[in-house]
Amino acid sequence: MSETVAEGVEALTLNNAKETEEPVATGEEVIAGDDDQNDVVDPWNVTSSSDTGVDYEKLIKRFGSSRIDDELIARIEKITGKPAHPLIRRGIFFSHRELNTILNLKEQGKPFYLYTGRGPSSESLHLGHLIPFIMTKYLQEAFDVPLVVQMSDDEKTLWKDLKVEDAIKLAHENAKDIIAMGFDVDKTFIFNNLTFMGQCPAFYQNVIRMQKCVTFNQVKGIFGFGDSDIIGKIGFPAVQAAPALSSTFPFIFGNRKIHCLVPCAIDQDPYFRMCRDVAPRLGFPKCALIHSTFFPALQGAKSKMSASDQNSAVFLTDTPKQIKNKINKYAFSGGRVTVEEHRKLGGIPDIDVAYQLLKFFLEDDAKLEEIRIAYSKGELLTGEIKKIAIETVTPIVEQHQAARKLVTDEALQKFMEIRPLKFGNSS
Amino acid sequence: MSETVAEGVEALTLNNAKETEEPVATGEEVIAGDDDQNDVVDPWNVTSSSDTGVDYEKLIKRFGSSRIDDELIARIEKITGKPAHPLIRRGIFFSHRELNTILNLKEQGKPFYLYTGRGPSSESLHLGHLIPFIMTKYLQEAFDVPLVVQMSDDEKTLWKDLKVEDAIKLAHENAKDIIAMGFDVDKTFIFNNLTFMGQCPAFYQNVIRMQKCVTFNQVKGIFGFGDSDIIGKIGFPAVQAAPALSSTFPFIFGNRKIHCLVPCAIDQDPYFRMCRDVAPRLGFPKCALIHSTFFPALQGAKSKMSASDQNSAVFLTDTPKQIKNKINKYAFSGGRVTVEEHRKLGGIPDIDVAYQLLKFFLEDDAKLEEIRIAYSKGELLTGEIKKIAIETVTPIVEQHQAARKLVTDEALQKFMEIRPLKFGNSS
Repeated sequence: MSETVAEGVEALTLNNAKETEEPVATGEEVIAGDDDQNDVVDPWNVTSSSDTGVDYEKLIKRFGSSRIDDELIARIEKITGKPAHPLIRRGIFFSHRELNTILNLKEQGKPFYLYTGRGPSSESLHLGHLIPFIMTKYLQEAFDVPLVVQMSDDEKTLWKDLKVEDAIKLAHENAKDIIAMGFDVDKTFIFNNLTFMGQCPAFYQNVIRMQKCVTFNQVKGIFGFGDSDIIGKIGFPAVQAAPALSSTFPFIFGNRKIHCLVPCAIDQDPYFRMCRDVAPRLGFPKCALIHSTFFPALQGAKSKMSASDQNSAVFLTDTPKQIKNKINKYAFSGGRVTVEEHRKLGGIPDIDVAYQLLKFFLEDDAKLEEIRIAYSKGELLTGEIKKIAIETVTPIVEQHQAARKLVTDEALQKFMEIRPLKFGNSS
Repeated sequence: MSETVAEGVEALTLNNAKETEEPVATGEEVIAGDDDQNDVVDPWNVTSSSDTGVDYEKLIKRFGSSRIDDELIARIEKITGKPAHPLIRRGIFFSHRELNTILNLKEQGKPFYLYTGRGPSSESLHLGHLIPFIMTKYLQEAFDVPLVVQMSDDEKTLWKDLKVEDAIKLAHENAKDIIAMGFDVDKTFIFNNLTFMGQCPAFYQNVIRMQKCVTFNQVKGIFGFGDSDIIGKIGFPAVQAAPALSSTFPFIFGNRKIHCLVPCAIDQDPYFRMCRDVAPRLGFPKCALIHSTFFPALQGAKSKMSASDQNSAVFLTDTPKQIKNKINKYAFSGGRVTVEEHRKLGGIPDIDVAYQLLKFFLEDDAKLEEIRIAYSKGELLTGEIKKIAIETVTPIVEQHQAARKLVTDEALQKFMEIRPLKFGNSS
């Protein structure tokens, strides 16, 4: 592992990365140097001009993170005593920062916690929104640790045409979806910023501590903010970063300075690069991260999923019929133009959205590999792989809907109540 | 009155002022155009190169505020049924925005509230710190209205070499000094941002609403922020402005949108220019203001008072002996070099700090005028006017110290407790 654990500076002062010969972008976005490929990856924009999507190897180099390699996967399996999660084994969670530090802590029986979040911009989540939470749930269970979940309704108020009141409502609705995934209420605290900031002075105090350590020039370099941006946006990164300091939650951690592991899609990394730069200056350990690739839009990796375009994704509120129609009609195919050609040349799983859905959601490794080979050889046709994808995701959505129905306002309140959480050994 | 009550734009979009031919400063500070005089007036810097201090007539024009003229003073006296406060009659509170609107409300029996504050950067206040609170107390009593007082410990954490914990302590110490001035606990709520932000979700929500309405370009123009400033500073103006929206205090005002009057030194005006621009867009009335001149350092109007220079001001913790020594030794004199010359030419009260102390603190108008004339004529010598100044401020400091001693932690807690306040008619 060529981990970057140097004190203090890291990506923040460099704007981008170490261990890379990539050109250093300081402006609006991180752009790969190639002529034939422009990947844009920041917390608000992820676009790629390639059918296979973002070049993640290059992203690792540019961001200065580390690849989750076979050695690290073997270590996870050894320490947890279980096979690593399919999302890890399949390279969907492909990158990390200091995951080894977290594994060391686990081996030493020392505490750490998980922090993840969601920006609630629409009432209905899509399948892709589940990914960080599936990983988080696996990690919570595998490591038996507390979890804090930030609903960044303030962010959505600032970035979208959304009122404070409506953003809070969306945060609560989205939190119910997260709860429906089966998190342990004794070990999980969910909070929305627009409410929690007014319930816990330690949160605002840590935001101020962080905002004291970061200049406009720095957030300009990291996030691409400009002079015409509203001041709320400029200050927000500290609000997303502060929960990676354990003292933001005195009711859970007291005044102990505990390590934090953040599972997230890699577009969120800039917040935590900033946080890792600031934390040691405030006397806290740097947060560790585990990064996922992006979930493709139905229209393929070049396209953008959008809550306002109901056909860009399978939503968790879709009926089986809607799912079937959407995938059949819109899922970008890696198949050939004619059946004859397909039989002869084979399909291309890497750009086939039906296959990607299976890679994210089909649990059976052997079956997935079988499908990949058959599709690559042209034995499996586009209609057939779509059918398998439909049969795979439909029950997942149905189960989610059933579980979501059982999440009452009281359950929501329990998860959001300010209270101590149980740690592994104390539970 | 040539009041500026145009909707929406006002000083914010203009950076400076209406009704003025002064050059419009957009950068670090507001600078008068004259060659022989550079007045710098912003919330962090007030300097003048003139012995008589800042040119306030020019400041009114530049800021686009209105002069408190005889007509307005007569109206205040008519409505309150009392002589206007000496600080108003003597032109120390010399400028305003929409004070007429507040007087209209009083005449109509409609509610409004007072909002003022203090940035707690040192434990010991000096005499000048009393001025906005003396005016606020007069207004609270004359109008019988609720008052909210912000201790901006977050601001001081961001601007000074001060830790969160220490800023909170200073806020509490300074709040005790404010309480010692005799505010009515039933009508006064004192809060420090680093605590209150974590106690009242409505506060953060209003901060976010305001931060959504203001760009970096705007705070750059208003406050002179630059790219190398920390992001905490850039967001802070909304924290100082939010309490001018009554919904920041739901426990006092419910969801009523009530007018607000802000007594403050004129260097704080930029915050409220910004607030007056934003408030109507959020459905709130613009706050009204009443502005004071600056309190001189002992060394004179060209010098700077500083908590780190104990000799730059009379502090509220000084002993009678210290007061006597400081004024005798350091108070800038408007007297002449020799007694003979002084008797012949007379002293210059406008630049004489002892006279200025009397103008701020000697209640008896007739006596003040007598002193002014005698000093101007050379009948009163420097040592003599200093003696009167010492005799005037010493009992004020002693009384303050006695009152301050009686302010217990319990009293502090009462003022800072989140609770409803009594309004005039309900008390």
